[in-house]
Amino acid sequence: MSSVNEIRVNYHDMEKVFHDILLGYSFNEDKAAMCARIFADNSLDGVYTHGVNRFARFIQMVAEKHVFPEKEPTKISGFGGMEQWNGNLGPGPSNAIFCTERAMQLADKSGIGCASLANTNHWMRGGTYGWKAAKQGYAFICWTNTIANMPAWGAKESRLGNNPLIISIPQDNEAIVLDMALSQFSYGGMEKFAMQQKPLPVPGGYDEAGQMTTDPKKVLQTQRSLPIGYWKGSGLSLLLDMLATILSGGKSTFQITEQKSESAVSQVFIAFKLSSLYNSSAINNVINSIIADFHNAAPGETSDKILYPGQRVLLTRKENTENGIPVNSKVWDEILAL
Amino acid sequence: MSSVNEIRVNYHDMEKVFHDILLGYSFNEDKAAMCARIFADNSLDGVYTHGVNRFARFIQMVAEKHVFPEKEPTKISGFGGMEQWNGNLGPGPSNAIFCTERAMQLADKSGIGCASLANTNHWMRGGTYGWKAAKQGYAFICWTNTIANMPAWGAKESRLGNNPLIISIPQDNEAIVLDMALSQFSYGGMEKFAMQQKPLPVPGGYDEAGQMTTDPKKVLQTQRSLPIGYWKGSGLSLLLDMLATILSGGKSTFQITEQKSESAVSQVFIAFKLSSLYNSSAINNVINSIIADFHNAAPGETSDKILYPGQRVLLTRKENTENGIPVNSKVWDEILAL
Repeated sequence: MSSVNEIRVNYHDMEKVFHDILLGYSFNEDKAAMCARIFADNSLDGVYTHGVNRFARFIQMVAEKHVFPEKEPTKISGFGGMEQWNGNLGPGPSNAIFCTERAMQLADKSGIGCASLANTNHWMRGGTYGWKAAKQGYAFICWTNTIANMPAWGAKESRLGNNPLIISIPQDNEAIVLDMALSQFSYGGMEKFAMQQKPLPVPGGYDEAGQMTTDPKKVLQTQRSLPIGYWKGSGLSLLLDMLATILSGGKSTFQITEQKSESAVSQVFIAFKLSSLYNSSAINNVINSIIADFHNAAPGETSDKILYPGQRVLLTRKENTENGIPVNSKVWDEILAL
Repeated sequence: MSSVNEIRVNYHDMEKVFHDILLGYSFNEDKAAMCARIFADNSLDGVYTHGVNRFARFIQMVAEKHVFPEKEPTKISGFGGMEQWNGNLGPGPSNAIFCTERAMQLADKSGIGCASLANTNHWMRGGTYGWKAAKQGYAFICWTNTIANMPAWGAKESRLGNNPLIISIPQDNEAIVLDMALSQFSYGGMEKFAMQQKPLPVPGGYDEAGQMTTDPKKVLQTQRSLPIGYWKGSGLSLLLDMLATILSGGKSTFQITEQKSESAVSQVFIAFKLSSLYNSSAINNVINSIIADFHNAAPGETSDKILYPGQRVLLTRKENTENGIPVNSKVWDEILAL
């Protein structure tokens, strides 16, 4: 990000702009504050695609009545530490925060808690919920299904979602957070490589002749992207969709795809109450000893540092806190005009 | 498998041979029957590497006092639906069956149940536990850590395990079962390609010059295999190790590796009581509609059929039930001599 059009926006200014716009689109004060903070946090952490760069589209989804700001989750059923919730097509981020908190409450009662969410909307960045739960001391797993955007292994047509999976665990006052979609590259990521005229570092999909390729333009043409691990990520995507559909009682990827636009997705949130097993310094000792060994490995030919999931986020967060969040001025102007 | 040395062994004959040998190595009747069935089932399902081809090595681990046949799991601690168990270095398969059942019992009480297992031994095929729980009507997730056998993304030295992950869900009277290690190929799998003088279908690791390669011999030389999804599987492996270590209170991959031999691994078993949400025909309808859509996708250039995880197992199981289990005669003679 160093084009002539890049500006830097202070975190609190960004949050306030988002907040005021959301109030104008029927978000109540609490929900406006929560969603503004999530979009600003995602931007601060460097996940611009699900932060500032996505905000205008989020507002458009509200204006077009795909996202209903006034809707709250309602309980469908529950048994012990496992509950099903209906998101009622409310805002994805506030619904997901609700179920993250609900999973932690269930874990407080039952050791492990699972809140599943049907009929919700795009949660933006899945890591949001992983960071939140881990910083409150819980180990946490969550995932979402999506519209079909990836062919299964052996197939030509996209029938699988990239179904992002998040796993997080507390570390000191921060967290280790894995936040990964099951496609090797997002289409947005491949567009960046294409704009920079660079090949992908590993194959990202297929060309017109059905050959795997590292040419991002060819994959963008065919829309045949690759799952992580080829046949393995293909299977993982299918199982996560099945599990999200069954646990939430909501729609599966193929039903979401039939609607044409991505809404009414299904999500699962699982929290583990680590404080029922240990005090936090015992957890830190274990995690830090694993990280120390991980960092001690000899680096490969092309890397100077081996990073754990979430480590780069901490560096970006620090930099953007100090220098402001980098934003394309056109994107920012569009937001200010909302 | 069609060499001159291949014989076919009937399932029940194989099970009886295993059972009688195990009785001679201090397994009590119940545990001998359970472990014999698991090794025979794995072979019947085509997972020979963790069935008949591994049996002699399993007995060797017993003889060398890495696996203690008489040991049973003991409870470390528990809170609601979450419990920690010590495997006391007992047989991996019987310990894992115990915790699979325990997770289901906890789910019966709490909707979702999690039994974690420290100080256990290799569970052979993770799918064993996924098939079992799903055929009893539960959705199920389990994973294990392993000795370090894979470098992290950006690293040269192996500090990560391939940490197999299993997700299963009931379907009719069978199950959909994803059973995948987090390395793109096992070393055993690469040896097969090497013997057949075939390249790997996708890159499997690095050559001496630090370049990714599809030449299995070069990866076998460097012992630098690739995680699924490159940086993504690397992160997933690390997080599954952390979670298994913290939840079980057991050893992490780096501590297992320090011991030199793979024992005292850590495992997690999570069961979801689907029957508290639905009757089984409702579950079947959902899963079968997802499978129908999955199978409807147009196949790619090089495949004629798109298989869901576990589908090939069912075909192999049928064939081996009818024709006997294919076994290398040298492997079988070695077992008969135990």
